[in-house]
Amino acid sequence: MIDLRSDTVTRPTPAMRRAMAEAEVGDDVYGEDPTVNRLQERAAEIFDKEAALFVPTGSMGNQIAVKLHTSPGSEVIIEERGHIFNFEMAAMAVISGALARPVRSRDGSGHLTWDEIEAALHAGGPYYIAPTRLIALENTHNLAGGTVMPRAQMEEICRRAHALGIPVHLDGARIFNAAVALGETVAALAGPADSVMFCLSKGLGAPVGSMLLGSREFIEEARRWRKLLGGGMRQAGVLAAAALVALEETPPRLFEDHLKARRLAEGLAELPGVSVDLERVVTNIVICDLSGARKDAATVCARLRERGVLASSFGDRIRFVTHYDISREDIEKALRAFREALH
Amino acid sequence: MIDLRSDTVTRPTPAMRRAMAEAEVGDDVYGEDPTVNRLQERAAEIFDKEAALFVPTGSMGNQIAVKLHTSPGSEVIIEERGHIFNFEMAAMAVISGALARPVRSRDGSGHLTWDEIEAALHAGGPYYIAPTRLIALENTHNLAGGTVMPRAQMEEICRRAHALGIPVHLDGARIFNAAVALGETVAALAGPADSVMFCLSKGLGAPVGSMLLGSREFIEEARRWRKLLGGGMRQAGVLAAAALVALEETPPRLFEDHLKARRLAEGLAELPGVSVDLERVVTNIVICDLSGARKDAATVCARLRERGVLASSFGDRIRFVTHYDISREDIEKALRAFREALH
Amino acid sequence: MIDLRSDTVTRPTPAMRRAMAEAEVGDDVYGEDPTVNRLQERAAEIFDKEAALFVPTGSMGNQIAVKLHTSPGSEVIIEERGHIFNFEMAAMAVISGALARPVRSRDGSGHLTWDEIEAALHAGGPYYIAPTRLIALENTHNLAGGTVMPRAQMEEICRRAHALGIPVHLDGARIFNAAVALGETVAALAGPADSVMFCLSKGLGAPVGSMLLGSREFIEEARRWRKLLGGGMRQAGVLAAAALVALEETPPRLFEDHLKARRLAEGLAELPGVSVDLERVVTNIVICDLSGARKDAATVCARLRERGVLASSFGDRIRFVTHYDISREDIEKALRAFREALH
Amino acid sequence: MIDLRSDTVTRPTPAMRRAMAEAEVGDDVYGEDPTVNRLQERAAEIFDKEAALFVPTGSMGNQIAVKLHTSPGSEVIIEERGHIFNFEMAAMAVISGALARPVRSRDGSGHLTWDEIEAALHAGGPYYIAPTRLIALENTHNLAGGTVMPRAQMEEICRRAHALGIPVHLDGARIFNAAVALGETVAALAGPADSVMFCLSKGLGAPVGSMLLGSREFIEEARRWRKLLGGGMRQAGVLAAAALVALEETPPRLFEDHLKARRLAEGLAELPGVSVDLERVVTNIVICDLSGARKDAATVCARLRERGVLASSFGDRIRFVTHYDISREDIEKALRAFREALH
Repeated sequence: MIDLRSDTVTRPTPAMRRAMAEAEVGDDVYGEDPTVNRLQERAAEIFDKEAALFVPTGSMGNQIAVKLHTSPGSEVIIEERGHIFNFEMAAMAVISGALARPVRSRDGSGHLTWDEIEAALHAGGPYYIAPTRLIALENTHNLAGGTVMPRAQMEEICRRAHALGIPVHLDGARIFNAAVALGETVAALAGPADSVMFCLSKGLGAPVGSMLLGSREFIEEARRWRKLLGGGMRQAGVLAAAALVALEETPPRLFEDHLKARRLAEGLAELPGVSVDLERVVTNIVICDLSGARKDAATVCARLRERGVLASSFGDRIRFVTHYDISREDIEKALRAFREALH
Repeated sequence: MIDLRSDTVTRPTPAMRRAMAEAEVGDDVYGEDPTVNRLQERAAEIFDKEAALFVPTGSMGNQIAVKLHTSPGSEVIIEERGHIFNFEMAAMAVISGALARPVRSRDGSGHLTWDEIEAALHAGGPYYIAPTRLIALENTHNLAGGTVMPRAQMEEICRRAHALGIPVHLDGARIFNAAVALGETVAALAGPADSVMFCLSKGLGAPVGSMLLGSREFIEEARRWRKLLGGGMRQAGVLAAAALVALEETPPRLFEDHLKARRLAEGLAELPGVSVDLERVVTNIVICDLSGARKDAATVCARLRERGVLASSFGDRIRFVTHYDISREDIEKALRAFREALH
Repeated sequence: MIDLRSDTVTRPTPAMRRAMAEAEVGDDVYGEDPTVNRLQERAAEIFDKEAALFVPTGSMGNQIAVKLHTSPGSEVIIEERGHIFNFEMAAMAVISGALARPVRSRDGSGHLTWDEIEAALHAGGPYYIAPTRLIALENTHNLAGGTVMPRAQMEEICRRAHALGIPVHLDGARIFNAAVALGETVAALAGPADSVMFCLSKGLGAPVGSMLLGSREFIEEARRWRKLLGGGMRQAGVLAAAALVALEETPPRLFEDHLKARRLAEGLAELPGVSVDLERVVTNIVICDLSGARKDAATVCARLRERGVLASSFGDRIRFVTHYDISREDIEKALRAFREALH
Repeated sequence: MIDLRSDTVTRPTPAMRRAMAEAEVGDDVYGEDPTVNRLQERAAEIFDKEAALFVPTGSMGNQIAVKLHTSPGSEVIIEERGHIFNFEMAAMAVISGALARPVRSRDGSGHLTWDEIEAALHAGGPYYIAPTRLIALENTHNLAGGTVMPRAQMEEICRRAHALGIPVHLDGARIFNAAVALGETVAALAGPADSVMFCLSKGLGAPVGSMLLGSREFIEEARRWRKLLGGGMRQAGVLAAAALVALEETPPRLFEDHLKARRLAEGLAELPGVSVDLERVVTNIVICDLSGARKDAATVCARLRERGVLASSFGDRIRFVTHYDISREDIEKALRAFREALH
């Protein structure tokens, strides 16, 4: 199977498996797992943040951040297709008692401008309006097609938000992809945000885990909430060992995933009835629109599956995500399968 | 002062005051207040619902309904300017652990069509998407300017929602105004909804209180949540006595508030730089847009206040609400004050 | 009916009814109800606290205090029969995400000593233990039989709690009864607590309402949570007017309720098989134990009801509460009915 | 270091490490990880339950169970030293909006009788009392010293609870230890409970993970809540592989941990000023009381640490937990160190 549904499906490399088998471990609830500690220090170093925490999933990392930045009865501004709003099961309401205030990005990029954010802000209003307590950004933006928010835009939003006393969290599940596409370091992109989460188990390829980063005080409190939510694992060093390999070895190769996505996008764009916004394909995600095609997206996906290719459909669109388990040849096969599936 | 900020500012009439002074009361936590019981029976009768519950505020009535219809980790579809989403302090997240999924009404009326709702629904999707558990409607729609949802639209939405097993709650804070404007009974308008809340302390003029209505089982459970939220008052009959007067005496007079609003709207529409969508002024709310005027809305409001007229500004707009403490002459005075304030 | 179930059943006096009928009112959501404002200022003055807030019920007052003093994932220490733990429907978990840590008072008085509290405290422990964020006291203690906590004990607990940075809330639903019994002012009793709630609708006799008091900042935030919970009423001045009468006129008469309770307790203690801890009957509550009697408590209560006397049974015990609607003669009638009911 | 603080500190065996390195994996959010699926099926088979779910921690397993069995505004009966009440950070309040109603086990065993439970139950009471929605048991009972609840007691509690419509959850973090001590199968012990959680990362020795078991419908819903809480890991098969080894290989060896605990307990009991309730030492936990000793527990623990032995002190007591990383010789060393530390 050529699995293009998501980069979450990547399997650990031999180096990661070896690292797991040989990992030095301890009880991380007591803070005594040396490999987890090493991973956390290394991540903090790479992102130039004071501290980092290993969490079982990106959702837990994001939700802990929402919890720590907000208070019950407040609002979080987020782009309307944002992951935290759409794919984390209303957890912000359950865990934090906070509402999302989704805002549409007018240019369709998935990345809000300060003006768009400002129009939705509640800051300093009457006491009977729920205040905005957090702005949540996402870079790259998953549902918008792996689009990137430039560093300057990120910096402006954070500067203005901070001037109002409102913190900014960056859902950087694929921040390494953004860094490659923008020619920036992840530290530069995440720098102005108060907290950032990135995933080890997406493009980086580790089997399990994400990191949450921020100030030392923030991470200390995050450790408490990780425990409360049931994320305080014991000998997590076996996972951290694979994650350390992923963190060191995969980023330099991510540009290859982007090239594969590019090739896929260009190939799709040539097919009849298939439209792809090529300008938006800058990382490892390709979204094509089939509203002009003879077959609907769900049918095409089913037919792709019969031909050994997995992708995700939603509405009129199909999403493909490239990753290191996909070869250039797989892309060509997928394109051939797609052509057949359309007929 | 001519107070046009809201119909919540109405003061009890002499008849209401007399009723309060003479009210027969008991302990309503034990269900023994005869006046509260009478009010609840009468409201149920008027709305043709099985049961009714007196609550201290419309917010509490709405939030209890959201609580009973949803489960933590689910979503509520609501028009993006809806009161429950914008003016109830994110209570649905705190009390119910539910997220709002706001939807824009394309025609600007504030009233969603079934197609608009359907596009935002999560019903029967994958397990990792928060399901839609409630559709919350509002009639009249406050922030959209007191606009009304016709009975047929209400019926269609409820029929289709019920076919998917999704309940519908009607925020009918001003449902009596809607009934007057549409020439329907409140029972007909609220009939297809699973629950409805209406306010006694807005246009109806009672000093305090709202009613929540639904099935007997729903109201029994609502009584539990009223207690949990701290709304289980003791000799509430003193309030219910005034409310009973309001419920019987005010509805036949509401058309006068609409006439006053109409006159106000037409007067405002003639002023330079002031725009009013006259087609939308069908009940007791008037919203005018000052983006074309020489003075901004906040300034005009401040100048109106100096001239003895109170109104609310938000952004470029000013909202006026008529009610029984406002005479026709007050409307003319307000128009004169507005004309002066604009200069 | 001689209703001794609770002092919540009191009905408004003619003076209260008159006050309601003549009350000057405004919209209290905007802070413009002059009678509510007067009540709040007067209560703050009597309790010597910076500010006060009128709330529809004592439960709402207590729960807002719990909310403001705690944070989600923390604990509240409370005597195991405390009202907040036993009669507020687990609201502290729903609204505040806080757990009660109930502690038994070894002497049975319902009033914890500092030693008993300290043994249950979590302060400065490891990060994976939920911290204590509040100590909730109750004076008089309802379920323990209207017992009183002396001023010195209250002061010691507060002093020591504050030294650890832990606030103290006083559920003073019947604090005026405690003041009478102890010969103290309510200001002296409530003084060391960070917040206090007292009820206008119990022994004081107002139809509806309670007050929450604390620092100005605390009350400002309490106003937000009152709105969120649905307690932001409009022309609440009609209730405040009756409450003002209650607050000024009733406290000097409360000693009569205590005398009636005393007489009732002494009469009960003489009956065969009925035991009453007379030393504990110091306010307006009498609890007698029927475990030595020939009939069980529920049966006796049912037989009392047939004879025109209402009381509450729980387990082997029956609780009576005296109040101003009960005359001395009613007490004698109740004793005669009890004697008959026992046979 | 001889680490007797907890059996959570065990490190993966070579067989577990090998299994991790060779694990066949997939994306478990999509239900496609074959090793996780195998583990879940095997656990369900061993416990004779319809279905099982792999969760990152025992806390998450317990909290999901509390969530699914309760509703916001309800109560959970639990022994007062229970793990769910004392060591899960008030999560039941945050996640489920439920309060714990702790009950003391009169015999000190940590295991409640039905009579003790019944006295604390709220079933069918008035609407303004929070209902009991769950009884949470713990076998073995950690804080009570690894004590076991006999099968008959478990069965009686469940039978009577079910007759009242109240479910029972079993925190079986160390249920395999209980089974060994009682000569029962885990299936027999967990059989009458509606749900059971057991830990793979305590005595069984896997690095990370626990299992939650129950009906198919319950587990389907548990999967949703695992995702919401951030426990939906991707290639979790690497952990499940180690867990499968633990599940098959460790249970037959647990009796050795019990023998080591026994030897430790008997050795401690001979020391001056140290008291151990030998009858209660039936699994792998030993709690000794130092209130009669010359040194306090914290000091003794600190001195043990200097001598290479780790244990946990709380109040006057010290807790030791044996596990497979502890040899018989380690026990003798620990006893010698203890003797020295006492002087």
